[in-house]
Amino acid sequence: MDEDIERRPGEESVALPEGYDAGVYFIGRVRTPWSRRADCPKNGTQTEAVCTLEVDPLYAPALQNVEGASHLIVLYWMHRAARDLVRQQPRHASGSRGTFSLRSPARPNPIALAVVECLGVEGNRVRVCGLDCLDGTPLLDIKPYYASTDSRPGARVDRAGTAKGAAGAAP
Amino acid sequence: MDEDIERRPGEESVALPEGYDAGVYFIGRVRTPWSRRADCPKNGTQTEAVCTLEVDPLYAPALQNVEGASHLIVLYWMHRAARDLVRQQPRHASGSRGTFSLRSPARPNPIALAVVECLGVEGNRVRVCGLDCLDGTPLLDIKPYYASTDSRPGARVDRAGTAKGAAGAAP
Repeated sequence: MDEDIERRPGEESVALPEGYDAGVYFIGRVRTPWSRRADCPKNGTQTEAVCTLEVDPLYAPALQNVEGASHLIVLYWMHRAARDLVRQQPRHASGSRGTFSLRSPARPNPIALAVVECLGVEGNRVRVCGLDCLDGTPLLDIKPYYASTDSRPGARVDRAGTAKGAAGAAP
Repeated sequence: MDEDIERRPGEESVALPEGYDAGVYFIGRVRTPWSRRADCPKNGTQTEAVCTLEVDPLYAPALQNVEGASHLIVLYWMHRAARDLVRQQPRHASGSRGTFSLRSPARPNPIALAVVECLGVEGNRVRVCGLDCLDGTPLLDIKPYYASTDSRPGARVDRAGTAKGAAGAAP
């Protein structure tokens, strides 16, 4: 855990298991214009910045055909996040919330997901638009985005975390 | 790698790094009606089956507020998949394709993603609709699905993997 992690009231942590169940490879790095958290946009839709997925040359052949997708799902590793929080209190929120109800980087497996626009592939680099993470963030995976299975334009999140029956409620 | 993995013509594998860069915890298991690959639906939109995310009791507090989301993103670990393939030849396809242009479970980090409908939370169990994986699949993460950042109804995938300029082309 990085020392820049700020502990807040309303948080609940657990003792994590002693060992991991599986391992991941960092397949490359994400190149963005942002080197400090405070500079990152709130989310990927808030910026027009062109970022680069820099894939390790070992995996470059796996980028074949990637250009055929208008949008990609990028999985990356939030290496500076706490992993032991089961409840958190987001800034500007009243009361704590369950980690799995949040997109916070702090979670048992700090795997973040972004849907990005694919602008082009050159060698081992993919130019994309729609990221909000720090420069140098470890890359885990790139997948084609399928509207048929991945798009749910009518999905709703009730931030109070209560009403399943509140159809039509404002987000 | 599981011995039931079938190697096909058109595949290209690499020598993976000797060590992992980070570790993951299995936070629970996915309970589905399918115990053999041949029985799994082609994808999560092809079935009405209600499945269960069985979260380890350690992480149950993290499920607070999850019910407020109509849809969830589920990340899980395809523990029986090959990890060393950079090019693969999907069944019924001609020619090989880059791993990152496919949703195949075989990839350097076998993290799969499904967008599911959230039907309800009881204790450490979340009932969902929209999964297609084997019963007992290790669970990695649960996130709320936000239409604003995660939904791209107009996204297209050109299976030939060529044309960025082919706007309006059939998927």
